[in-house]
Amino acid sequence: MFDGDKLLRVPGPTPVPSRVALASARPMLWHRSPEFVELFRRVESRLKALFETEGDVLIIAGSGTAAMESAVANLTSPGEEVVVLNGGKFGERWLELAHAFGAKPIELKYPYGQGVEPDALDRVLAQNPGAKVVYATQNESSTAVLNDIEALAKVARAHDALLVVDAVSSLGGAPLPMDAWGVDVVVTGSQKCLMLPPGLAFVGVSPRAWEKARASRGHRYYFDWSRYKKAAQNAESPYTSAVSLMYALDESLAMMEEEGKEARFERHRLMRAMVREGLRALGFTLFVEDRWASPTLTAATGGGVDPEALRKAVRKKTGVTFAGGQGDLKGKIFRIGHMGAATPLDMVTTLAAVEMGLAELGAPVAWGRGAGRALEVWKSWQ
Amino acid sequence: MFDGDKLLRVPGPTPVPSRVALASARPMLWHRSPEFVELFRRVESRLKALFETEGDVLIIAGSGTAAMESAVANLTSPGEEVVVLNGGKFGERWLELAHAFGAKPIELKYPYGQGVEPDALDRVLAQNPGAKVVYATQNESSTAVLNDIEALAKVARAHDALLVVDAVSSLGGAPLPMDAWGVDVVVTGSQKCLMLPPGLAFVGVSPRAWEKARASRGHRYYFDWSRYKKAAQNAESPYTSAVSLMYALDESLAMMEEEGKEARFERHRLMRAMVREGLRALGFTLFVEDRWASPTLTAATGGGVDPEALRKAVRKKTGVTFAGGQGDLKGKIFRIGHMGAATPLDMVTTLAAVEMGLAELGAPVAWGRGAGRALEVWKSWQ
Repeated sequence: MFDGDKLLRVPGPTPVPSRVALASARPMLWHRSPEFVELFRRVESRLKALFETEGDVLIIAGSGTAAMESAVANLTSPGEEVVVLNGGKFGERWLELAHAFGAKPIELKYPYGQGVEPDALDRVLAQNPGAKVVYATQNESSTAVLNDIEALAKVARAHDALLVVDAVSSLGGAPLPMDAWGVDVVVTGSQKCLMLPPGLAFVGVSPRAWEKARASRGHRYYFDWSRYKKAAQNAESPYTSAVSLMYALDESLAMMEEEGKEARFERHRLMRAMVREGLRALGFTLFVEDRWASPTLTAATGGGVDPEALRKAVRKKTGVTFAGGQGDLKGKIFRIGHMGAATPLDMVTTLAAVEMGLAELGAPVAWGRGAGRALEVWKSWQ
Repeated sequence: MFDGDKLLRVPGPTPVPSRVALASARPMLWHRSPEFVELFRRVESRLKALFETEGDVLIIAGSGTAAMESAVANLTSPGEEVVVLNGGKFGERWLELAHAFGAKPIELKYPYGQGVEPDALDRVLAQNPGAKVVYATQNESSTAVLNDIEALAKVARAHDALLVVDAVSSLGGAPLPMDAWGVDVVVTGSQKCLMLPPGLAFVGVSPRAWEKARASRGHRYYFDWSRYKKAAQNAESPYTSAVSLMYALDESLAMMEEEGKEARFERHRLMRAMVREGLRALGFTLFVEDRWASPTLTAATGGGVDPEALRKAVRKKTGVTFAGGQGDLKGKIFRIGHMGAATPLDMVTTLAAVEMGLAELGAPVAWGRGAGRALEVWKSWQ
């Protein structure tokens, strides 16, 4: 099949706009040259605006998991109790990381397809007054759930605990004003809402988090935040910067500024509404109720077809790629990514691809019902 | 100044050929798609040929230091004695990493500008029979020294110790046949002889190293080798692969194969000879004697000028960037990188740039003496 630009509708990596992709192909720079200093400073300032923080935003060469690990290695000492909110694969990752670094995680499990109730965190912190770091997930991309970070941050603050948020698949697509909400650490990756190739990770660090990091004895070197902060004073990274991705980052942050924060969040909410309504019109069951529905991806099931068979049929006939379920949800749901460089018009083609997949599987399709419903939502969007 | 493609003559990042840079701008792929499986398998097989090993070569998203850290976190337990060979900044990095992970490094220091004598390692291992891992540097890029890894590997093997080699600034430019020499772990990065942007790191792991890793209790998750090995069975990386750099890697490995291993090593030796003879002709003192001279970069001093002033003058007048000294060598030497996508003709322009820098500083210059000597070396090269 002619595939041109790959039609990726997975929860990352997301499509990279050509402006960004071509920026990454610029001639290599020395990471200790005046030109790099200029690039570093511009990117640093744009990142702070994106994180909505006056604190530091550190840039690490690595995947989103690298940034997550840094938040464990810098904030916990072996044997220390921490709270982990776990409602899916990425909550599990916090658990695994805590174990790997010798911490003692207290697990607050919440159901797949739902967010964590702030009251539940309140109870856990009251019962475990020694636990002073909470590891949370803003957007659990294995279930398509968006947690209420503003409320969780209030609870953590009331117990004098730090809140660390995995926002890998949400920062840039859903509001997370770090300082205003009192979030202590935000980690994210390049290949989701930031419209970049994978390979860069970012960590926003509050003054309270720095204080805790100074006292922590977790083993760290490559992920040692203090090395990044020290190097940043000279507009350097402590280890060779991923220069081509820094070029790309500079361009993607410029594009995000051009669109504007509110317009960007609104675009993601609109895409969510179009996909959810379109899927409903086609007879699918949404895995997540409206209250917890993520603006960056949607999980669904039903529709009279097997989710894996549907994914394969859609890909074969249209070239559009959806993701399946992970872990316990393998074979039970399919997931559609709608974040980063995606537009409302892309949601129409996404639903058209679903219709084509249904027909390929022999399911009865009223042509245009899903795509049409999405258009209707778009037209009536306030 | 018109700068076109940046004229980088630093020991990394090195210039990225346009074939490679443009490959990195290809449309994003899902890291769990059939197309990625194909890319992963091809790259994996080409990497094994580059490392000259039948063992595993793991691909990590991160800088060369990330790969170094993995060799500490996977091979040592807190409190364990290890031997570190230290003759410059990158030997020091092994020391720092060992300390960061709670190991007890026994330091074998060797002089700046020289390599480590295999006999010295023999004595240290005899005196410390409990130390079963040796951390070495093939190419100490802070001093431009190439160590004799073949001899060091024999010594380590005789004491039943593992040899771990930092080949970040040499693999691809100097021979390091991992299996033939009995080296247990080789780490390298993308932005040196591999002609790629920074952001990928590679680790060759021998069966003996796997055995030791299984018994080690070092804290690790992102750098846990066993996760990479398990994921590679499905042609995946355990965390999101740096897809754009994987495209670039595939292209650069293809270019390296096209040139051929022996021709590539010979090209680096020729460039070394041209630069060293050219600098000598211009009155500079080489920092490293012939016996230990690196084929991937050259350090020099003297010539009647201050090294930092020379670097600045060269850069200002010609756009060519050299590196200065690091740590104790700051202000005492300058370093010229000649690895990866560099040609003999580039060495002529490199020496021309040195001549122009000398003249800018008011030093007497016989025009063409350095560049001419380099040409002469090239013509007479066997």
